[in-house]
Amino acid sequence: MTMLPLHGLTVLEFSQYLSGPSAGLRLADLGAKVIKIERPVSGDACRHLAIGDQWVDESSLLFHTINRNKQSFAADLKDKKDLALVKKLIQNSDVMTHNFRPGVMEKIGLEYESVKKLNPKMIYAEITGYGKEGPWKNKPGQDLLIQSLSGLTFTTGNGNSDPVPMGLAVADMICGAQLVQGILAALVKSQNTGEGAHIEVSLMESILDFQFEFLTTWFASGCLPHRSHISNAHSLLGAPYGIYQTADGYIALAMMPIHKLRAAINCESLAEYFEEEIFSKRDEIKKIIASFLVKNTTEHWLEKLIGLDLWAMPVMNWDELTKHEGYRALDMEQLVDTDGGQAITTTRCPIRIDENILKSKIGAPKLGQHNQQILGELKEKIHY
Amino acid sequence: MTMLPLHGLTVLEFSQYLSGPSAGLRLADLGAKVIKIERPVSGDACRHLAIGDQWVDESSLLFHTINRNKQSFAADLKDKKDLALVKKLIQNSDVMTHNFRPGVMEKIGLEYESVKKLNPKMIYAEITGYGKEGPWKNKPGQDLLIQSLSGLTFTTGNGNSDPVPMGLAVADMICGAQLVQGILAALVKSQNTGEGAHIEVSLMESILDFQFEFLTTWFASGCLPHRSHISNAHSLLGAPYGIYQTADGYIALAMMPIHKLRAAINCESLAEYFEEEIFSKRDEIKKIIASFLVKNTTEHWLEKLIGLDLWAMPVMNWDELTKHEGYRALDMEQLVDTDGGQAITTTRCPIRIDENILKSKIGAPKLGQHNQQILGELKEKIHY
Repeated sequence: MTMLPLHGLTVLEFSQYLSGPSAGLRLADLGAKVIKIERPVSGDACRHLAIGDQWVDESSLLFHTINRNKQSFAADLKDKKDLALVKKLIQNSDVMTHNFRPGVMEKIGLEYESVKKLNPKMIYAEITGYGKEGPWKNKPGQDLLIQSLSGLTFTTGNGNSDPVPMGLAVADMICGAQLVQGILAALVKSQNTGEGAHIEVSLMESILDFQFEFLTTWFASGCLPHRSHISNAHSLLGAPYGIYQTADGYIALAMMPIHKLRAAINCESLAEYFEEEIFSKRDEIKKIIASFLVKNTTEHWLEKLIGLDLWAMPVMNWDELTKHEGYRALDMEQLVDTDGGQAITTTRCPIRIDENILKSKIGAPKLGQHNQQILGELKEKIHY
Repeated sequence: MTMLPLHGLTVLEFSQYLSGPSAGLRLADLGAKVIKIERPVSGDACRHLAIGDQWVDESSLLFHTINRNKQSFAADLKDKKDLALVKKLIQNSDVMTHNFRPGVMEKIGLEYESVKKLNPKMIYAEITGYGKEGPWKNKPGQDLLIQSLSGLTFTTGNGNSDPVPMGLAVADMICGAQLVQGILAALVKSQNTGEGAHIEVSLMESILDFQFEFLTTWFASGCLPHRSHISNAHSLLGAPYGIYQTADGYIALAMMPIHKLRAAINCESLAEYFEEEIFSKRDEIKKIIASFLVKNTTEHWLEKLIGLDLWAMPVMNWDELTKHEGYRALDMEQLVDTDGGQAITTTRCPIRIDENILKSKIGAPKLGQHNQQILGELKEKIHY
């Protein structure tokens, strides 16, 4: 590959925390120059938010993870001189992102209408919690709250359990990916027309789209999800779909004809069930499977199932995963350098281009690390 | 908005089921003409895969949901004449996607190297389960199996529960979104250089990237996730983060200082805990909160919490959600017409462009519905 696909494009990231910055990270992976515009002294609030109490240099490991391969420009948007500089940057950039609550950018004078006057070609991309209208517009756009409002928590976990949130920031991640899609589509168009665009995505609309299969089924049927009471994995699929305990771990069984499963594992109690009953008698069938599989090892069952081309895999934790040859063959890890001299290991961009894996050694910036460099480049560009 | 951003681009979708077709759906939402290349008689296998036993016309509701706003061209890739036509289509398209197992396109002669000769500008995008090397390369690339192998199932659910898969096809959805990002980035470049590109994404690499926060923490700490035993929502966050039962439903509490929570709900038992202990004494604190919140209604607690600007929301199911004014304000639903004359309700694209919501009334195609039209357009274009 001669050049990364977004090489030459400049993105100003006013976004904080995860949703917006995860979009910036992907744009950086794909070759864009991503400049974080951060308030002096404290910077992106994510610098101070650690998970698992992990820190690197002065910022959280979380911040380093999300913001590798970016530059930092410290500017106080409430200061006239700083704001004037930021406006010059805006005039010399292609994309900007923010995830402030509705009203914040308006107050500063950097809402889309004003920015469009500064730079008519700007792709202006913003993330909100719930859009800009309706009773939720000023509510906190936070991942767990969005999951909880959206119905998503009734799809995961077993039928007898309380609502179960997904154990990571799924709304943030999905929303960031939507923002990238909107930005890149707008860039494809603007290269032809010279027109900018205003892209808006919200956490809530993203998590609703994420459930599009389920919601369409709900619109048609009016049936709320019935999670199976044993080994639930998808409330609209029949047995054996799910995860089962074995004598030494767990095994995952995807869709497979019940009589083939019976033959593979030699479980005669399954003989009385027909394929037409795998949904209506799901719990009953799963109970039989669960009590049968627990008697032998994962390896034992896998051999029998895979021998008949049935879709089964072991259930692994990160320790087992990262030691596995299958994982190693993917070459998913990369080392990035931090300013303090410490290298950290993180994952790489999952997209391959022209048989190339995309890696970069550049770590997350120190707050304001690139002010001089960016101002120098700006001076050269506009001779001010 | 004058024109959708991908207007004028043609995408050939050889993909089946969810991951690849969800990418095609987003490209169609954004204005591309997406043509499904389907085998005669049976078509995309997803036509025959129903969830919740829901059907529309001759195909599953699931197929209709994923493939609205697309065209269908029926062609037998093993038939010389059909293959020649498909090659002509390839010469007149901008993007193609497939999610066949490694080796299938090679056998047909439509792997990237051959396609590149037919059309050097083609953006050739493919999805695999696990990439094309290593011991997993020929394993079934199925959502639940990928979740199970990737460590993801140990992040969701409470500490005492078995591994818990997410209750929808998260690997498929995330991977589809990665593919769109790769395709659009390649289009941005190819408009400048005239060069095509080979984009590859796998379900496994996508679900590893999805866990990038967690995996980076794991690389640094070597600590496997400790899900809290009560109300787990994120294994690396402290109390009260989670969902709690109330007298009449459930309430979600995001991050908030423990002393503010105490003051808001007037729970004196929380007085003995310090902010520094919200992680180490998480289960203990959550137990107190759980036994306290169950004594009154969701509405009661929300009033007290929101009064102090604390991040809390009710937990809703789809019935409650879709009746809520906040949901209605988002205008997330759209009606699409099916060939049989029946209109179905589904969700719309979550991306807004220039203040416009993107909707289309065009439903999923009948198998081969557009063969004549597409051949006619091709004849006009190439005068063959």
